[in-house]
Amino acid sequence: MKLYDYPTAPNPRRVRFFIAEKGQTIPIVTVDLAQRAQFTPAFRILNPSCTVPVLELDDGTAISEVPVICRYLEDLHPDPPLMGDTAEQRAIIGMWDRRMEIDGYLAAMEALRNSLPGLSGRALVGPHGYAQIPELAARGRQRLADFMADLDTRLRDVPYVAGDAFSIADITAFVTLDFARGRLKLELPDEAAALRAWFAHVAERPGTQA
Amino acid sequence: MKLYDYPTAPNPRRVRFFIAEKGQTIPIVTVDLAQRAQFTPAFRILNPSCTVPVLELDDGTAISEVPVICRYLEDLHPDPPLMGDTAEQRAIIGMWDRRMEIDGYLAAMEALRNSLPGLSGRALVGPHGYAQIPELAARGRQRLADFMADLDTRLRDVPYVAGDAFSIADITAFVTLDFARGRLKLELPDEAAALRAWFAHVAERPGTQA
Repeated sequence: MKLYDYPTAPNPRRVRFFIAEKGQTIPIVTVDLAQRAQFTPAFRILNPSCTVPVLELDDGTAISEVPVICRYLEDLHPDPPLMGDTAEQRAIIGMWDRRMEIDGYLAAMEALRNSLPGLSGRALVGPHGYAQIPELAARGRQRLADFMADLDTRLRDVPYVAGDAFSIADITAFVTLDFARGRLKLELPDEAAALRAWFAHVAERPGTQA
Repeated sequence: MKLYDYPTAPNPRRVRFFIAEKGQTIPIVTVDLAQRAQFTPAFRILNPSCTVPVLELDDGTAISEVPVICRYLEDLHPDPPLMGDTAEQRAIIGMWDRRMEIDGYLAAMEALRNSLPGLSGRALVGPHGYAQIPELAARGRQRLADFMADLDTRLRDVPYVAGDAFSIADITAFVTLDFARGRLKLELPDEAAALRAWFAHVAERPGTQA
């Protein structure tokens, strides 16, 4: 098994964090996105969506898409459970993880990819070029502000995003917010005390360094 | 168990199609989106994302998000499998389903919600109002054209989206393309022979009427 990765990209970081929480190690192949290596013919065969991460299994099967890769790894290594260990828990965690991804992660990508000069003509990942839309960069930042406020409200009631236990939903939210700070200069609001406390707590996990 | 639904919305249709393929029946509660019933205080408690479908379990737990609801139903009723019956098959089908959703379904929503006068100020689902962006409506239509071409290429090699067997990925793609025809007047291209043959074949399934 191999993980196709790029060190500074946030989606691969979600999977590395997940693998670290599982106590696993998977050999890494770096795909040099700065050199557009995700668009080479060889990589397109592996993943026609031209994205990392990709998990390549020993039989050559290539799996892309972060939650799908994580689900596969959870099936292989159920302990510690990060995606729930009953049908109902899987559903609750899956729902919260998707909310973190749609409302948070995708908003951050919208803000970044529609504003970064180096991504001109590549406002969406994938093989097709789409032009940047400046209004979309502004919308992405507004959505992130709304996301932080909503998540702060949630975390006043529960210690972790999906409830009582650390899960993949915390990984998605943490990587999103750390990316927003580092790349978009969007800090957690001072008044979002619950969100700030949760962020500081999660930041202590070794997986954040993976 | 109850399913909160709206008859003409495409996301609930995906779940109704899935339930029909399972041979199951779940009581329906209609949420009148035309009357903005998804924004009432009672519904916000059920689902703060203000979307349908929602599956309410007998213990009161509310599950939103289409693939999460389907995963829960698959756990309860594994036969016939629509999401894979091994870890590897689950991964392959999950990956293709997500591609259909991101590249197809979300593109269709982008095209519709940024152009329909009745959705002014509601270009994204959810509790926060975001303005329509006309350039995004045009981009959504271009993305759907790219999606149809890519899926036609895929279906030249395999009978179903995820490979040899009908799966949730076919449901997602079919509902998306049927919505594009009906609501966006985007027909399948004449030259997309494989896509057209697959569409006609899937259209014969009783679940398309659910």
